[in-house]
Amino acid sequence: MPREELNQIYIAVVGAGGVGRHFLNQLAAIAPKYPNIHLLLVARSTKSLAAPDHTKPLSFQTWEADLEKSTAPALDNDQIANFFYKTPRHCVIVDNTSNQDVADLYPQFLYSEVSVVTPNKKGFSGYLGLWKRIEDAAFHHLYPGQVRGLLYHESSVGAGLPVISTLKDLIDTGDKVQKIEGVFSGTMSFLFNNFAPVDGKGGKWSAEVAKAKEAGYTEPDPRDDLNGVDVARKLVILARICGLEIESTDSFPVQSLIPVELESVKSGDKFMEKLPQYDSSMEEVKNEAVKEGKVVRFVGSIDVGKKALKVGLEKFDKGHPIAGLKGSDNIISFYTERYGANPLIVQGAG
Amino acid sequence: MPREELNQIYIAVVGAGGVGRHFLNQLAAIAPKYPNIHLLLVARSTKSLAAPDHTKPLSFQTWEADLEKSTAPALDNDQIANFFYKTPRHCVIVDNTSNQDVADLYPQFLYSEVSVVTPNKKGFSGYLGLWKRIEDAAFHHLYPGQVRGLLYHESSVGAGLPVISTLKDLIDTGDKVQKIEGVFSGTMSFLFNNFAPVDGKGGKWSAEVAKAKEAGYTEPDPRDDLNGVDVARKLVILARICGLEIESTDSFPVQSLIPVELESVKSGDKFMEKLPQYDSSMEEVKNEAVKEGKVVRFVGSIDVGKKALKVGLEKFDKGHPIAGLKGSDNIISFYTERYGANPLIVQGAG
Repeated sequence: MPREELNQIYIAVVGAGGVGRHFLNQLAAIAPKYPNIHLLLVARSTKSLAAPDHTKPLSFQTWEADLEKSTAPALDNDQIANFFYKTPRHCVIVDNTSNQDVADLYPQFLYSEVSVVTPNKKGFSGYLGLWKRIEDAAFHHLYPGQVRGLLYHESSVGAGLPVISTLKDLIDTGDKVQKIEGVFSGTMSFLFNNFAPVDGKGGKWSAEVAKAKEAGYTEPDPRDDLNGVDVARKLVILARICGLEIESTDSFPVQSLIPVELESVKSGDKFMEKLPQYDSSMEEVKNEAVKEGKVVRFVGSIDVGKKALKVGLEKFDKGHPIAGLKGSDNIISFYTERYGANPLIVQGAG
Repeated sequence: MPREELNQIYIAVVGAGGVGRHFLNQLAAIAPKYPNIHLLLVARSTKSLAAPDHTKPLSFQTWEADLEKSTAPALDNDQIANFFYKTPRHCVIVDNTSNQDVADLYPQFLYSEVSVVTPNKKGFSGYLGLWKRIEDAAFHHLYPGQVRGLLYHESSVGAGLPVISTLKDLIDTGDKVQKIEGVFSGTMSFLFNNFAPVDGKGGKWSAEVAKAKEAGYTEPDPRDDLNGVDVARKLVILARICGLEIESTDSFPVQSLIPVELESVKSGDKFMEKLPQYDSSMEEVKNEAVKEGKVVRFVGSIDVGKKALKVGLEKFDKGHPIAGLKGSDNIISFYTERYGANPLIVQGAG
C-alpha cells in the first residue's frame, strides 16, 4: 500500500448531541491543518448521515445541516459494528454517547483494527468482564504484536485534563502508584468551593445546590450528581488502570449526599423544593470541619496497596491544594514511589 | 518486512553520567515487559560500548560493568550520526548529555528516520535556526507525510511532569494558549518555599542557599541556578512550541539573583562565603511582599499574545497555587481560551 494511503484517517462519529456537536465543531476548526482526516459517518439515535464511500467523505463544515436534511434512519449495532468493513486503514470510531450498548461493541472494533476514542465511561467503569475484553483487544503501543485498534478514553476522567495519559505514563515507565486522590466532579467542586470556602463564608447547602443548578453546573435532576456515582465510575477506571480488579461501583463505599427521605421523590424539581428541610445536617458537617480549622470537600481516593476505594466527604487543611480549588475545577493527585511525599498534581476545569 | 521485524526498537544511549545511568536502570527494570526493545550502544565522553550488530544487543542488566570493561574509545560525532546505518527500523537515540554538539546532530538523525528522545535543552532553547531545522526534520504524528524520526523532549521542561505533551495537545486540538506561568526550577522552588514561606517564617537568604547547596538541590556553583538562565531556557522551549520565534535567552528580561559584585568571584565556594553580605536586599524584597500580604517567588511567564517572556521575582497572594508550593516542586499554569480564568495546572517534583 502506498505510504500516502497509510496516512489517511477515517472517522465515524456515534452520538451527535451536546458533546458530539462540540467535538465535530472543534474538529472542523482544525480540519484545514489535517487534510488526511476524513469524516465518513455521523450517527444519532434518530437518524444518520453516511458518506457513500471513503473517497467521498462528509463535509466538516456542513455536517450539521446535511444531517438535518438526511432521511437515512438511525443505525443498529450491527450496522455500526460493520460500518468500516470496506474502508482502508486507519479507521476510528468516536463514541460520544453514554450508552452501554455502544461500549459493548469496542472489543469487536478493536479486533478489526478500528480505533476507539470516547469520553463514554460505560466500557471502562461497567462490568469487569467487558473492561478485560476491551483491554485484551486494544493495541498497546509500547508492546505491539498484532493488528489492533488503538484505544483512547482520556476524557472519561477529568475531561480535557491529562489524567489517564499521565497515569499510564507513570505505570508504563515503571513507577509504582501508591495512592490517587482528588476532586473528580466539576459539580461537586463548584458546590463545596461555594458552600465551604476557605475564607469561612458560604451559603446554605440547598441554596448552593439551587445556584449550581441555575448556572447549569448540575444534571437536570441534581441527584444524578449528588449520589456520588459519577465520581465512583471515574475511580473504577483509574483503579483498573492501576491493575486493581474492581468489580463495579458497588464494590466500595460511595457516600451519597441525597437525604434518604428524598431518594424516592419523583422529580428533580420536587427534590429541590424539599432539600432546604435537610440543610442542618450539611451545616453540621461544615461546622465540624471549621472547628478543626479545616474545610469539607467531596473527594474520591484509591489506596492501591490496600486495594481500597472510597468516595465521600473528607476534611482538609486550608493550605491543602484540594481546599484551595476554585470554581468548578477538578484536581487529581498521584502519589507514587518516584514522587514521594509531594504528589504529581493535575488541576483545571473538568 | 515481516510485522515482527517492524515491532523491534533499537536504542543508542549517548551520555551515561547521572541522568544516563538512571535512565538505563529504569529501562532495565521494565525491560522484561518489553522484549522488543534492544540496547545497541552506550557512549560516554571517555569510552563506549557497542553491540556487534542489531541481532546481538547489549544487556540491560550488565551494561554498566560491561562498559567499565570496554576498551572501545569514545565516539566522534560522525560515528554517532552513522551508528544506525545498518540497523533496521525503528532506531532511537537517547541523548542524556547537555551538549550542543550532540543536539546539532538531531536534524540528521530525524531525516534518516532515527527518533530522538532527550532531556537536553540545547537543541530547543539554543539558536533559533537549529530549532527550526529540528522541527522541520521531525515526524509530526498528527500530520504524517514522510519517513522521519519521532522527537520527544518532554523532560527538557518540568522533568517527569507532563508539560510539553500537555501544551502540544492543547495546541494540536485547536485551543489558543494565552499565557503560561510557573515555577520552572526545583532549586528556586526549594529556596523560596523556605526563604519566604506562606506562614511568614523563613531564614536568611544566604543561609537558605547554603542549606539548598548542602541538600544537593543546587549546582556545584549555585550561581548556575541563581542566574535564571535555566528557567529562561525552559521558557524559550515552551514559547517556541506556542509559535513564537524567540531568538535566544537574551531576547527577553531575565533577572539574576547574583549580586553584581559577586558575578566575577572565581569559585562557588568564594561566592558562598561572600553571599551573606548581600542578604539585606533579598530581605527587603521579602518584606515588601509581606507588607502587601503576599509572598515572593521566582517565576517565568510567557504572554503569547504580546510575545512577551519574563523571568524573575514576582509577588503572589498567599492563596495562589504558586505561593503554596511545597519542597522543590515545579508548577506550570496554562491559561487558554478553553480553560478561561482558571488555568490548567501541572504540579509536582521537577
